[in-house]
Amino acid sequence: MPQNHIMTKDKQITTKDTPNYGFDITHKLPNSLARAGVLHTPHGDIQTPVFIVGGTKATVKTLTNDQVRSINGQAILANTYHLMLRPGADIVEQGGGLAKFMNWNGPTFTDSGGFQVFSLGVAYKKGINAVANSEQGDAGKAKASSDQLAKIDEFGVNFRSHIDGSALRMTPESSMRLQWQIGADVHMAFDECPSPLAEESYIRESLARTHEWARLSKIEHDKIWQEHQQAGKPYQALWGVVQGARIEELRRESARFISDLDVDGFGIGGIFEPAEIPTAVNWAVQELPEDKPKHLLGMGNQISDLFLGVEYGIDTFDCIAFTRQGRNGSCYTATGRINIKNTQFKTDFTPLDPECACYTCQNHTKAYINHLFKADELLALTLNSLHNEFFVVNLVDRIRQSVIDGTFYDFKASYLERYFKKPFNP
Amino acid sequence: MPQNHIMTKDKQITTKDTPNYGFDITHKLPNSLARAGVLHTPHGDIQTPVFIVGGTKATVKTLTNDQVRSINGQAILANTYHLMLRPGADIVEQGGGLAKFMNWNGPTFTDSGGFQVFSLGVAYKKGINAVANSEQGDAGKAKASSDQLAKIDEFGVNFRSHIDGSALRMTPESSMRLQWQIGADVHMAFDECPSPLAEESYIRESLARTHEWARLSKIEHDKIWQEHQQAGKPYQALWGVVQGARIEELRRESARFISDLDVDGFGIGGIFEPAEIPTAVNWAVQELPEDKPKHLLGMGNQISDLFLGVEYGIDTFDCIAFTRQGRNGSCYTATGRINIKNTQFKTDFTPLDPECACYTCQNHTKAYINHLFKADELLALTLNSLHNEFFVVNLVDRIRQSVIDGTFYDFKASYLERYFKKPFNP
Repeated sequence: MPQNHIMTKDKQITTKDTPNYGFDITHKLPNSLARAGVLHTPHGDIQTPVFIVGGTKATVKTLTNDQVRSINGQAILANTYHLMLRPGADIVEQGGGLAKFMNWNGPTFTDSGGFQVFSLGVAYKKGINAVANSEQGDAGKAKASSDQLAKIDEFGVNFRSHIDGSALRMTPESSMRLQWQIGADVHMAFDECPSPLAEESYIRESLARTHEWARLSKIEHDKIWQEHQQAGKPYQALWGVVQGARIEELRRESARFISDLDVDGFGIGGIFEPAEIPTAVNWAVQELPEDKPKHLLGMGNQISDLFLGVEYGIDTFDCIAFTRQGRNGSCYTATGRINIKNTQFKTDFTPLDPECACYTCQNHTKAYINHLFKADELLALTLNSLHNEFFVVNLVDRIRQSVIDGTFYDFKASYLERYFKKPFNP
Repeated sequence: MPQNHIMTKDKQITTKDTPNYGFDITHKLPNSLARAGVLHTPHGDIQTPVFIVGGTKATVKTLTNDQVRSINGQAILANTYHLMLRPGADIVEQGGGLAKFMNWNGPTFTDSGGFQVFSLGVAYKKGINAVANSEQGDAGKAKASSDQLAKIDEFGVNFRSHIDGSALRMTPESSMRLQWQIGADVHMAFDECPSPLAEESYIRESLARTHEWARLSKIEHDKIWQEHQQAGKPYQALWGVVQGARIEELRRESARFISDLDVDGFGIGGIFEPAEIPTAVNWAVQELPEDKPKHLLGMGNQISDLFLGVEYGIDTFDCIAFTRQGRNGSCYTATGRINIKNTQFKTDFTPLDPECACYTCQNHTKAYINHLFKADELLALTLNSLHNEFFVVNLVDRIRQSVIDGTFYDFKASYLERYFKKPFNP
């Protein structure tokens, strides 16, 4: 079985089995779980904490790779489910793997496809928040309705493609095979993310399944790595996913179980509210080995999540909401969000955010972007995606620096007070 | 009345009245109308012959200005009609004029809006080719139908906005006012472009109107220039438009009439087929002063038009078909067009055109672009627009160089034979 190549200031374990993969913690914030580090991958290093840019279908929506680099994007996260459907994992593999196929040629991650169990199953066509807020919201108890595209059983999930309705199945084993074919540097284990409103009995049942799937994911991962190793190919890391909803006992149990699998890092899933970071994330991180990287799965578009995540030991984030909001006209600024489509901006010849160093703010006015939206011009989507993605990538970079400088708590308090226009209390 | 600042090798007329505007012919191809030159504008010089990039609504569709510069775009042509509707000429003016409003900060042109007389009037919802090929194709005779958005009278055109149906009117005078407000470096006189199938009686009537409108355009232009001059603002040039369909007598008459107005350059309109370049364009150019720049209005997507245009004395081209075709998946290569959406390209890991130096071809494969189209990803439109626009800009740059080198006819024959896979005969 391959061992991890994990390095911290205190210890360094290097094996030939996992070349080019490892994690260094370079700075720790005193009396906190917050830290800064470097994640080494076959396609390059990532400075953490980091916001990983969403590239669901092997493209960062509306942006060229050069533009992603211009906003200091370090790594891209694609989705196994979407790439399995289009163009097919085999095509990505033929194209040299995800990084080469899309000519990103930098570090890449893949989601396992497990989240689609949730979003195409009980939550299909409702939206996650719709499920969370639904009066019949116990999605875990809900019977499969005719518009659900996914049904879970003990060994995996039967899907219907949201594109052509064709019948598909994903299991821990097939997710691992697909992710190795797609060839990202970091894979996620196949898990189930239960609804935030599921009953405890369902959460326990789901967690047992997630753990069994994680175990099977790891076995399959190791088997495929042996095949790749014999072919002289580089290691691809597997991060296990911790679930357990808002129940402390289950979060801690899950963290210990996943940790015992000797995976290369962790995703923490099933987090739906900022208030769950000081609780559910904290419980999990306390049980997880300090020296391995940790990813917050499914964060929302809350700026505060980035600060709280780092504070409670998260190293990597991803969220597609920032570019999606940008495409809808909603732009982040240091003093809150604005909707650039509003008529008030028609004659505002200042940048979206006068403090912002992004291409959009350095080159264009609110009036121009307002015009592009009104005129249905696609450049509006590109300029706003550039701006919002720079905003969030840059903010996490600044949080990283504040961890290194030891100014994290001051930065957090002043930034969030200005952003929310009142002191921040999670 | 202001005079032109026209320079050729043989003569140079410089007046204080038209600062920063002028045209130098630097090279002439022996025994031909083809020439290379430099068009001077308040926002910079343009090397001619040149393909002017289409920026109808103050944006080159899907491309940032940096990307337009990366394909060696020298100038942008926007549309008075579209900008009048959105965001409004007053907003563009408040934003510092077209070049500053869109932060292009290079040379710009505007169409007069006159072509919309045609495309929103008799040709509305039919498409130009549909009118040209129609059995009841005499658009000039056609009665105004309820779905026409424009009606022509002696003094101008009543429009209905294609956006909200509101009633608008454009006259030579209002087109000039709007163009000065928008503030491009080169304006076009307000003209009517008759259908290619119009009867001779209609063409004569229409041409008389176009000439009267050109005269009124010039009077209004000079009046506004005096106002601007007193305010210390730079000159904006007026190019007159030659019509006359396929009738030699009318083309020559039109060229002489427009030439006598002492405008700063010329647009040649109403050209619908490549075969009209050696005839109708040639007749017009023979009557026009050699030392002023000439623009081919309404060229199609025929690569051969670029060679024929230069051969018969055209200095500037524009056409939005190249980016539009790119957005539809149709890509230009040195050996003809391909549709990147075709399934055969799903596993083709070579560039669109192996000889092409554009960003798209230097960075991406056919398989990747095919995937982006299949996955409805907007980056597909950006990458194809970059490629096609580079293709045509670069081709005209190469034609320019062949005029300078004296290799034009060899280049034309070899390029078009390879492109069409047979010797080219117009």
